[in-house]
Amino acid sequence: MTTHEILVRAKAASPLAATLTTDQKNHALCVMADTLVAHTADILAANAADVEAARGTLSEVMIDRLALTEQRIADMADGIRQVAALPDPVGRVLEHIDTETGLHIDKVSVPMGVTAMIYESRPNVTSDAAVLAFKSGNACVLRGGKEAFRSSQAITTALRAGLRECGLCEDLIQLVQDTSRASATELMTAVGLVDLLIPRGGAGLIRACVENATVNCIETGTGICHVYVDAEADPDKALKVIENAKTSRPSVCNAAEVCLVHKAIAPSFLPKLKERLCDNRTVSPVELRLDPRAAAIIDGTAAGERDFDTEFLDYILAVKVVDDVNEAIAHIRAHSTGHSEAIVTENTAISSVFTAAVDSAAVYVNTSTRFTDGGVFGLGCEIGISTQKLHARGPMGLRELNTYKYIIHSDGCVR
Amino acid sequence: MTTHEILVRAKAASPLAATLTTDQKNHALCVMADTLVAHTADILAANAADVEAARGTLSEVMIDRLALTEQRIADMADGIRQVAALPDPVGRVLEHIDTETGLHIDKVSVPMGVTAMIYESRPNVTSDAAVLAFKSGNACVLRGGKEAFRSSQAITTALRAGLRECGLCEDLIQLVQDTSRASATELMTAVGLVDLLIPRGGAGLIRACVENATVNCIETGTGICHVYVDAEADPDKALKVIENAKTSRPSVCNAAEVCLVHKAIAPSFLPKLKERLCDNRTVSPVELRLDPRAAAIIDGTAAGERDFDTEFLDYILAVKVVDDVNEAIAHIRAHSTGHSEAIVTENTAISSVFTAAVDSAAVYVNTSTRFTDGGVFGLGCEIGISTQKLHARGPMGLRELNTYKYIIHSDGCVR
Repeated sequence: MTTHEILVRAKAASPLAATLTTDQKNHALCVMADTLVAHTADILAANAADVEAARGTLSEVMIDRLALTEQRIADMADGIRQVAALPDPVGRVLEHIDTETGLHIDKVSVPMGVTAMIYESRPNVTSDAAVLAFKSGNACVLRGGKEAFRSSQAITTALRAGLRECGLCEDLIQLVQDTSRASATELMTAVGLVDLLIPRGGAGLIRACVENATVNCIETGTGICHVYVDAEADPDKALKVIENAKTSRPSVCNAAEVCLVHKAIAPSFLPKLKERLCDNRTVSPVELRLDPRAAAIIDGTAAGERDFDTEFLDYILAVKVVDDVNEAIAHIRAHSTGHSEAIVTENTAISSVFTAAVDSAAVYVNTSTRFTDGGVFGLGCEIGISTQKLHARGPMGLRELNTYKYIIHSDGCVR
Repeated sequence: MTTHEILVRAKAASPLAATLTTDQKNHALCVMADTLVAHTADILAANAADVEAARGTLSEVMIDRLALTEQRIADMADGIRQVAALPDPVGRVLEHIDTETGLHIDKVSVPMGVTAMIYESRPNVTSDAAVLAFKSGNACVLRGGKEAFRSSQAITTALRAGLRECGLCEDLIQLVQDTSRASATELMTAVGLVDLLIPRGGAGLIRACVENATVNCIETGTGICHVYVDAEADPDKALKVIENAKTSRPSVCNAAEVCLVHKAIAPSFLPKLKERLCDNRTVSPVELRLDPRAAAIIDGTAAGERDFDTEFLDYILAVKVVDDVNEAIAHIRAHSTGHSEAIVTENTAISSVFTAAVDSAAVYVNTSTRFTDGGVFGLGCEIGISTQKLHARGPMGLRELNTYKYIIHSDGCVR
């Protein structure tokens, strides 16, 4: 089927998706979890073919992301059952107004319509994205990377078998059959057919979507996160926060990339930072990239021109000495991607200035940036982390896949 | 000053706008209302020059929209005082979560940053847009039409005098000095300097903004609104609703343009509709543009190819006979701009199907579409009506000029 045909079918199926009851959706999700497990052999065979084809062209790390096991498929099915257990975001009455003139106005949450997702080589995203779209009342069109195409196809087939078993239209969950660049462009520009596009992957993919999309597109993911150590920081807390934010999982978007240090504390703090992140770590020591003022205090690599604007996703930390909280705020406003930033200080007046003036989705006080996550923030699940300000900001769960409409009843009111 | 310099100044002023207290903002608004009145003579002189220059190039209707009087300026000042009386949208705690691991998470409403507005020749939009942006904690950049430039300049000067009197930075409210197409394009593409662009004007302006904007842009205003008269409609209620929706103010976006009539009621209802909208109206009778099935029942103009996709903004109504509510829904989904639609029926099962399946910002039962309005919907004011689904849908007030961020406190939590 062509991508255009898939989109037209999704749009036609979207009113059905919007009017399914909570019980219908939850039952279908549980059935889909079962059919996914029942298709384990098919999925593993397809995945083995993907992995075989990828050998030599993808790195070992990427092949590990691509490879599925029986356990990973069981985990995907458990993920689906967890989504079934979450509250239904559709049909919530967000506000109710009765006017003196006899109008009864409900502001009600409703699905977007058709959500499209462009992603890369992790096949489990196929299942995650499909079930989050389904639970939130949307028809979905998935366009995965070509390295995982056979796996994504097998997973989609299993999920659609579940829909069929429940007597539901299979067009609610569809995989684009063409993995060329043209199909991605087609999704980005399908005005009238795609209500929401969510790219999920590296910075290049997200930039391509944001720049080329004429449909509604959510900018997700890229995180140049900062930790600012104030003059009145507790040094032990600061070390603990920075070590965690930088080293607990450096490949993710909520990991810290830059440390800003107040000049008053820098002479005593920076040697401790070097000891904690470099000298004391036998495995994966952190490379420090230092601005001139930091380099005057400790040894390390001299920071290059781009080091304060790079998402390293690695054991690398850029370090800069600043005059005060205002310089820290100005630096963050100029260099941040708007994801997550932290201040370490015992002075609540200073932390209030920081949380008010820093213009990012999540602003932390004495806390690691690693907590920016749909589960931690009470959303129950996550389809991505928005770094933009319209519609949704920060972790996006089921509610963020909805919009709202106003429904107004009266007995013949005119104006 | 160049448009770029204006934008840079607005961005620099936006942290100040975000941190003003409610009292500071409300006091400044009352002072601005006073300075606006105090500048009446200057504003009227500037406006007279605009009107003089426009004679011969603009229609009388447009000149009437452009012309100011002492009363209209007093009304603008009253509008400012009303905005001062509205609740502050900034700093509301939308959600609060305490996690078992010791995190205290607040989801807090915050301003967008810099809002830009591109509008046409009504000078009062200058004052409206400036004060709504100010109250919602944003710095604003205004780009009005060239016909009203002198008037907008005089109004902006008066408002900035009020800011100055309160000791506030005048860069919070700025008017673009260049009214060429280039300055509009510059606002649409000022990524990193404009956080939200709201076009307000005709369909051409809005389309140009939506198509060319690389900054966040809200699609506003265009309304091809439908009224569907069901087989089980009360005919009197239907006539009252349609007459009001079509004729009470045909030039506005929430006026009806299309009437769909169930085939079972069409033979009895359409003659009454013609009588009510055409024969009985000596002033401004409505021209009916009929599809073939309606034309078989009553006299009128044969509908042309574009008549079901046109925002007439005039005493013209396209009329079509449909088989049932499902055909009405399908027609609306295919031809609506997503603004406002109504059903007239006494059957609540049918109206529930209609309100669930129609994908527009406001869906009415037995009620005129003319009520889609920020005041009616409890927003207290209105900066435009969104016809898109992301971020805001329907009337946009102060809250819709905000986004949110998460602020997280803990005592050294790491993950």
